[in-house]
Amino acid sequence: MSSTYGENLKLSIFGQSHGAGIGMTLDGIPAGLPVDLEALQQFLNRRAPGRNAYSTSRKEEDRPEILSGIEDGYTCGAPIAALIRNNNARSKDYSNLYDCPRPGHADYTAHVKYGGFQDVRGGGHFSGRLTAPLCIAGGLCKQWLEEKGIRIAAFIVSIGGVTDPYEYDPTDPPIDRICQDFPVLDPAIGEAMRRRIEEVRAEGDSVGGIIECLITGLPAGIGEPMFGGVESRIAQIVYGIPAVKAVDFGAGYASGYMRGSQCNDAFTFENGRVVTKTNHAGGILGGITTGMPVIFQAAFKPTPSIAQPQQSVSLSKGTDRPLVIEGRHDPCIVPRAVPVVEAAAAIAIFDMILGNTQTDRRK
Amino acid sequence: MSSTYGENLKLSIFGQSHGAGIGMTLDGIPAGLPVDLEALQQFLNRRAPGRNAYSTSRKEEDRPEILSGIEDGYTCGAPIAALIRNNNARSKDYSNLYDCPRPGHADYTAHVKYGGFQDVRGGGHFSGRLTAPLCIAGGLCKQWLEEKGIRIAAFIVSIGGVTDPYEYDPTDPPIDRICQDFPVLDPAIGEAMRRRIEEVRAEGDSVGGIIECLITGLPAGIGEPMFGGVESRIAQIVYGIPAVKAVDFGAGYASGYMRGSQCNDAFTFENGRVVTKTNHAGGILGGITTGMPVIFQAAFKPTPSIAQPQQSVSLSKGTDRPLVIEGRHDPCIVPRAVPVVEAAAAIAIFDMILGNTQTDRRK
Amino acid sequence: MSSTYGENLKLSIFGQSHGAGIGMTLDGIPAGLPVDLEALQQFLNRRAPGRNAYSTSRKEEDRPEILSGIEDGYTCGAPIAALIRNNNARSKDYSNLYDCPRPGHADYTAHVKYGGFQDVRGGGHFSGRLTAPLCIAGGLCKQWLEEKGIRIAAFIVSIGGVTDPYEYDPTDPPIDRICQDFPVLDPAIGEAMRRRIEEVRAEGDSVGGIIECLITGLPAGIGEPMFGGVESRIAQIVYGIPAVKAVDFGAGYASGYMRGSQCNDAFTFENGRVVTKTNHAGGILGGITTGMPVIFQAAFKPTPSIAQPQQSVSLSKGTDRPLVIEGRHDPCIVPRAVPVVEAAAAIAIFDMILGNTQTDRRK
Amino acid sequence: MSSTYGENLKLSIFGQSHGAGIGMTLDGIPAGLPVDLEALQQFLNRRAPGRNAYSTSRKEEDRPEILSGIEDGYTCGAPIAALIRNNNARSKDYSNLYDCPRPGHADYTAHVKYGGFQDVRGGGHFSGRLTAPLCIAGGLCKQWLEEKGIRIAAFIVSIGGVTDPYEYDPTDPPIDRICQDFPVLDPAIGEAMRRRIEEVRAEGDSVGGIIECLITGLPAGIGEPMFGGVESRIAQIVYGIPAVKAVDFGAGYASGYMRGSQCNDAFTFENGRVVTKTNHAGGILGGITTGMPVIFQAAFKPTPSIAQPQQSVSLSKGTDRPLVIEGRHDPCIVPRAVPVVEAAAAIAIFDMILGNTQTDRRK
Repeated sequence: MSSTYGENLKLSIFGQSHGAGIGMTLDGIPAGLPVDLEALQQFLNRRAPGRNAYSTSRKEEDRPEILSGIEDGYTCGAPIAALIRNNNARSKDYSNLYDCPRPGHADYTAHVKYGGFQDVRGGGHFSGRLTAPLCIAGGLCKQWLEEKGIRIAAFIVSIGGVTDPYEYDPTDPPIDRICQDFPVLDPAIGEAMRRRIEEVRAEGDSVGGIIECLITGLPAGIGEPMFGGVESRIAQIVYGIPAVKAVDFGAGYASGYMRGSQCNDAFTFENGRVVTKTNHAGGILGGITTGMPVIFQAAFKPTPSIAQPQQSVSLSKGTDRPLVIEGRHDPCIVPRAVPVVEAAAAIAIFDMILGNTQTDRRK
Repeated sequence: MSSTYGENLKLSIFGQSHGAGIGMTLDGIPAGLPVDLEALQQFLNRRAPGRNAYSTSRKEEDRPEILSGIEDGYTCGAPIAALIRNNNARSKDYSNLYDCPRPGHADYTAHVKYGGFQDVRGGGHFSGRLTAPLCIAGGLCKQWLEEKGIRIAAFIVSIGGVTDPYEYDPTDPPIDRICQDFPVLDPAIGEAMRRRIEEVRAEGDSVGGIIECLITGLPAGIGEPMFGGVESRIAQIVYGIPAVKAVDFGAGYASGYMRGSQCNDAFTFENGRVVTKTNHAGGILGGITTGMPVIFQAAFKPTPSIAQPQQSVSLSKGTDRPLVIEGRHDPCIVPRAVPVVEAAAAIAIFDMILGNTQTDRRK
Repeated sequence: MSSTYGENLKLSIFGQSHGAGIGMTLDGIPAGLPVDLEALQQFLNRRAPGRNAYSTSRKEEDRPEILSGIEDGYTCGAPIAALIRNNNARSKDYSNLYDCPRPGHADYTAHVKYGGFQDVRGGGHFSGRLTAPLCIAGGLCKQWLEEKGIRIAAFIVSIGGVTDPYEYDPTDPPIDRICQDFPVLDPAIGEAMRRRIEEVRAEGDSVGGIIECLITGLPAGIGEPMFGGVESRIAQIVYGIPAVKAVDFGAGYASGYMRGSQCNDAFTFENGRVVTKTNHAGGILGGITTGMPVIFQAAFKPTPSIAQPQQSVSLSKGTDRPLVIEGRHDPCIVPRAVPVVEAAAAIAIFDMILGNTQTDRRK
Repeated sequence: MSSTYGENLKLSIFGQSHGAGIGMTLDGIPAGLPVDLEALQQFLNRRAPGRNAYSTSRKEEDRPEILSGIEDGYTCGAPIAALIRNNNARSKDYSNLYDCPRPGHADYTAHVKYGGFQDVRGGGHFSGRLTAPLCIAGGLCKQWLEEKGIRIAAFIVSIGGVTDPYEYDPTDPPIDRICQDFPVLDPAIGEAMRRRIEEVRAEGDSVGGIIECLITGLPAGIGEPMFGGVESRIAQIVYGIPAVKAVDFGAGYASGYMRGSQCNDAFTFENGRVVTKTNHAGGILGGITTGMPVIFQAAFKPTPSIAQPQQSVSLSKGTDRPLVIEGRHDPCIVPRAVPVVEAAAAIAIFDMILGNTQTDRRK
């Protein structure tokens, strides 16, 4: 199913960028879980547009109305539904997009699939704006995971070629070293990334980047073999974020270049608990958590909307034609995507914990 | 669910490496699809162990018995079930694995999850042997896709650091240039890869590698937005293959370092059909196929079973201890994983096509 | 999952009787299907409260706002979301329901499951009011089925012991003979039913009844064997309607008392088409439609809220206590349940048609 | 999906009556659950054909081979797979069934759906024989429920018009009074049922009947609102049993004729526990168990295969024609269906318990 995710919880996301509103339903959540709506709003604000010089100037409040499922600060067992009104949608004419698809966007594929009935305004249901309801669901799951001592935090590794040459011990990832305002490990490199974004904006261009996500406090034994593994479940939802073109876990791509003697993480006892001395596995063996931190990366392609003239086609005339995209656009969505990656990871992890069955040790 | 995959078809895989047998059920397949069991066997042989100097010496026939669903060379509408007997399972003593988990394997995570009730022999349900039933399902889907003009072929990009510096046009990938015996684009590099495998075997070590998968002939409009996108669906099943630690699509990781003006694929008409001039998107925009070839890569970590001594723990004693893994093992599973990647892709694509709804063009 | 239904479409219903609003998301609907919102409102009005002497006096507009998925009178491929605000919810004190569960309601089972965190006001998520979003989804599916010549209409067979001794030919059910205002086949019996409802209301009591649903125009071949059969799919959703305690198909219960020679429906050709001479099967053999009308019944228990004093318990004190339910309540929900049964059937049938695969005849 | 069931466990059934074998995969079962294979065989024997004068003379051993998932008497966490070989399938010619569908069977609907590619031998995948793998899965679930003090037992209420005028207290159903050999409450009536079966067999006819299923020991709080309710989940799977045409719960159909004052079950404390004084609800309110016994009935239509000549059609010639079904057939499948109903109920209940989330009482 397209906009539905989950094995034990069921997340259903709706809305179009310029329709009446966007939102989500989250079914299957136990009653009695505390909800801090103020903290949720803070989390959503990290994703919201129009807050920084380096993002789009469209200012949406992204203030969700809880329609059901939460009473007096606790989940009540009924599905949680939330709605964000689209207040700032300009009534400008998008009709040319039905004829001339923007390169890198879903305009053409939506045209083929939906036969011209799709809502093209602002990308319709394919808009990055739909990550706001993902952040509502994910922000809630993140709170509930934190109650269990599970923390999720992501940071920017690279933007537009400005790459953090970070080193850290993946058995103890630097979750508390992530900068608050611009989520990087090294503020100087963050500053260089921001400058790079401004440069490409001035050139009417855009850049992509790499985000790394850290999950600590996960107990061992979460996840299922084969298609229900932690990698499968996280990758499915992270690839649901627009612009993601790569997802890898632990040593990831580099694993393909390693030797077994180097890649295998040796087991050892530490304070009476089994740990691994290294963490090339990214906290996952056989699809199941080892109890070590789960670490993954996602690569985002550059924003397809650029000011430079591009070549496209006229679908009605059957001819090539130039396209100039008007308006201001995010030259880089990577900073705003950081909480979205956290949200996606939180949903996947919470879903797996909900359905987890674990057997007591055989006597 | 752990060993179950699919939205429209339902694949269910069962078995343990050293149990009575392994197999699969594939439900939801329309009646009347032709099945070439001989071609299926040829496909399975590509994955089977014991056929090459560079793979494990355990010789299994991997000859599936069709239990249901296929009559007189056609699917009959009933679920397809197939069984491969485990003939060559040695009765050697695996019981030490309950106490001393092998680094890089699922022994420890299975121990935590299943409390000591898991079948550890040969990795049990986590064994790479379980990719054989995946190849039965995938080999069938591949045949049915070929009937529609959709071809799937994978090749080895890199093994143990021996990397093919290939260049090709991703709008027209070299599906017919893949070597038959050892699936690479350049036989000289394939020879170097094989030598590398022999070297690491001699050192009691193992290596990983990178596989690239090409899918041609896919019509535009397949896939769904968000979590039902082609990337999500393929990544979920490919991460179900043991040892996969990275999956990316099109320009993939490199997208994160590109500019929009470079990464966007310009549209153009070619023979009255919309195509893109480049294919950094890997044939997917907004989760939906563009009609261009779908291209993805998967990175495999090195085989965790190595002859060199490793450090592990005694779970019962609560102490560290050395571990030496006996027996012969694949120093590199990448060559045998090539048809497995094709199978996984075929299942994901066939599943999406089964459920595809597409709307005729608005008048 | 609790409030989620569907194999090919995904319906997710949210809301509590006295929360901010109730609504639904319907994902997986193809683009380009026409939507008549006025006809949808007419359909919803058939379910709405406060319109008749014989129903509750709470007057809700039940006027849904379409939040997404429908543009310019057509589905656009994005999930359809709709919201009905709860305008008329009185702020009366429901807190005693946390302590003293109403017999026949879900108060006690919700208390056990949700530990006191449930929303008890007006039954919360268990309220019959949640059938309004079911009718939004079902009303849409009904329109789309009508486009294909498939008609669904239900009528009242029995209320409070006043039973229609109707006879009709189930190979040609009297879909056009159903009265508009009060959906019965015989208006005189409908009048007697209404009088019965008034009588029990005067006595502070309530009554149940039986509804029969007719589906015509369904092609043969819809449905799947075993758990995906038409009976399984319809029964699952119809049992999701509050108060339903029985569902049967065709001759239904009476089948258990028949002989094979009597129950088997003989095949015959009629106008070059295979039909059955009788229709004890209710249009379904092996879970798959025969092309004959699908006919089923659902029995509704009496409204649990009655004015007469009842015995309940004080959960906090651990003692028995009497309970008097204040306010006015529907003495019979059966008339308002008629469109709900149609809606449920429409959703189930449309879902099955969406996923239907059928094979052309073997040459 | 057709032959797949379950939200938390995943049951997948395969096979055709006269193919190589029939069987099932049951995924999602926790490790460490004890399995008594001898008790499972005893349970399967209750369903097996050829054991009584009143059932078909085909003698199948129905002795399943466990292919995976069970080691040393315990589940091991891997999917459980089991296979029953079809040993006694006669090679008689079934090809006329492709042209002349048997009334009351799925021959015609399979013909339409599968276009002539279906396996018609003995009903193929639609055969009642496919209830054997359902009984494997259900027999296992039944054992695991018994470990938790949950008992499931069904008995025959009516066969061929011979009906047991039983009375019992549904708050304490007579689970221990069910006769062992022929599962009725009153052996004299059981004897009359058997005579009735012999009579109709002599007449070349068949009869249907009614089965009632009792489930005791279920805690309160199992099940979900709306489509995930106990009624929805049980009805879906019970309707997957061939020949079932009615399912109702508690007072069931009779509820439609009751008054609220009569139907509502008053709450009371008994030994410090909340119970209901009556049990018209059949142990379910709002889809969730009350802690009282769950009781449901299923009506089975008469066996469609009868010796008397019937009217059918020649699909190839487009004309009506008479049909005489050769061979011996069960004149009544109801006695053998009793363990199948228990199996279906056990699977549904175990599935719901697996996924159950319950919240501790609010302080």
